[in-house]
Amino acid sequence: MRNSNRQWILKQRPVGAIKPRDLELVEKPIPVPGEREILVRTLYLSLDPTNRIWMSDMDQYMPPVPLGEVMRGGTIGMVEQSNNPDFKPGDIVSGIAGWQEYSVASGGQKIPKGPQPLTASMSVLGMTGATAYFGLLDVGRPNAGETVVVSAAAGAVGSIVGQIAKLKGCRAVGFAGSDEKCRHVVKDLGFDACINYRKENIREALKRACPNGIDVDFENAGGEILDAVVEQINMKARIALCGMISTYNSIEQPRGPALTNLLMKRARIEGFIIIDYFPRLGEFYADMSKWVAEGKIKYDTHIVRGIDNALSALNLLFTGGNTGKLLVQVSDE
Amino acid sequence: MRNSNRQWILKQRPVGAIKPRDLELVEKPIPVPGEREILVRTLYLSLDPTNRIWMSDMDQYMPPVPLGEVMRGGTIGMVEQSNNPDFKPGDIVSGIAGWQEYSVASGGQKIPKGPQPLTASMSVLGMTGATAYFGLLDVGRPNAGETVVVSAAAGAVGSIVGQIAKLKGCRAVGFAGSDEKCRHVVKDLGFDACINYRKENIREALKRACPNGIDVDFENAGGEILDAVVEQINMKARIALCGMISTYNSIEQPRGPALTNLLMKRARIEGFIIIDYFPRLGEFYADMSKWVAEGKIKYDTHIVRGIDNALSALNLLFTGGNTGKLLVQVSDE
Repeated sequence: MRNSNRQWILKQRPVGAIKPRDLELVEKPIPVPGEREILVRTLYLSLDPTNRIWMSDMDQYMPPVPLGEVMRGGTIGMVEQSNNPDFKPGDIVSGIAGWQEYSVASGGQKIPKGPQPLTASMSVLGMTGATAYFGLLDVGRPNAGETVVVSAAAGAVGSIVGQIAKLKGCRAVGFAGSDEKCRHVVKDLGFDACINYRKENIREALKRACPNGIDVDFENAGGEILDAVVEQINMKARIALCGMISTYNSIEQPRGPALTNLLMKRARIEGFIIIDYFPRLGEFYADMSKWVAEGKIKYDTHIVRGIDNALSALNLLFTGGNTGKLLVQVSDE
Repeated sequence: MRNSNRQWILKQRPVGAIKPRDLELVEKPIPVPGEREILVRTLYLSLDPTNRIWMSDMDQYMPPVPLGEVMRGGTIGMVEQSNNPDFKPGDIVSGIAGWQEYSVASGGQKIPKGPQPLTASMSVLGMTGATAYFGLLDVGRPNAGETVVVSAAAGAVGSIVGQIAKLKGCRAVGFAGSDEKCRHVVKDLGFDACINYRKENIREALKRACPNGIDVDFENAGGEILDAVVEQINMKARIALCGMISTYNSIEQPRGPALTNLLMKRARIEGFIIIDYFPRLGEFYADMSKWVAEGKIKYDTHIVRGIDNALSALNLLFTGGNTGKLLVQVSDE
């Protein structure tokens, strides 16, 4: 066990892209668990586009991370000491321990050992998979034979969305930022088509990839991609708005797509956030664990080692440097 | 009976605001009904924001009016001659006879004589009222105690929307373009508040008028009003997108509101068009005719006389020159 606790502190709110001076890596004593508390050693830290929102003080779905405090982040960790009879050293727990090596908590969600690697509980079998599942099925509501478009298709959520769409009998069309990612999305994950948005003319490529128009869009990107999607939707199309990573580093919130076609097509754009689905996670877990066990859903994990690399790793989400779920391995399992 | 049929022909598609040269008033012989046809004398012509869309060749919910043809428009008229045993001279029929004094048809929807003036069947008891009814209740789905905002609140649809919202136990807040209209909306129609968007700071006035935020928006205007609404929506808010008259004269389709708050608030924007509700018009008619008879819903009718004034009258919708349903009286009842 180390004898200090490295943690990332939010020093100032980023303006535009996150800069190294916006956060600071500091070294603190390892905290001591109080009565009925546990000391948890972080194993993995989840990096997600929403982390950028938490750094800002915009009106959002959770309070912004206060300046001077440890950066918020989803984690799994191992119990090192326990004053809580419900936990024993060696237990694996998930939580929101933040960007640090050790944390003290009153408890946590225990993660049982299963056939999948521990990191699956942070991706396909965790919030990432649940976001794909409820966003597509509950907000997007695809019917067999319809066309489903998903941006950031090589990303943690998008890659699962397209595979669920295929399981439901839909045509799945992705957007990704490189030919290599597009090949992966089509060849390995089974999408029908994938558009390299950095290289191709988005509108024309989307028309070719969606000859019957777009019925469902699972939106992770926003910006130009969403503009093109709205222009090509079918009657009664559903746009499940999960995120708009293309806009998170914008200094002013950019305007959205022209809404005329939404009106003409009697279509809808609906925002959703996974925390609203916590009471229904059982439904997701039952389906997804089965699909993963049967090999029907594949998932990628991109692991960066070391808490000191958390900040540079987060930027991979904005430069398109990761494929699949992005994690920092903070300490060894 | 006149011995000619004046009709407005769409000469060219307007660019920006509609100009006099875009349409032409021509004089044609009165058409002769064929076998099983009827000759109808137009009594009233409905003028609606969507007329501007029909003049354009944008992708829309009906085919654009072809150049060189009579401008499309909803009408009620009196049967003058009938070769159809189902109709007799003097019957009143509604239809889409267009901007002309006489038309020939195979039939039409007969309008029975009721306690309301004939023109009510073109406003509160017709498509206008049905648009308000289904857009608010089926798309907006307000609950008692919630706040409903409606733009163009002194207009044909908006004025009905706010009154239905009040009947359902909601707070109703309107936008209108003059102090006089705002007074009318609050004092005569019973809205809780009305904002003169030409005079007041929209964002600040909206905050004052909606101290508990916005749960439902019935959107007729688009542009700056919709921007401000999206910024002030509550969790799970519903924006029923009925129209965006502020943008119809734009040469390029303007972008929509920033969607970040839609995501954070898990809210939705949904377009709707009344033609999709035709199978359910009975529900509307049962409720609305009762409400009107009981004096619970009031309605205004703004009548301009003479087919030759149709084009200048249409522009009242864009300059805010009308209060309530705008009609052209083409001939005497």
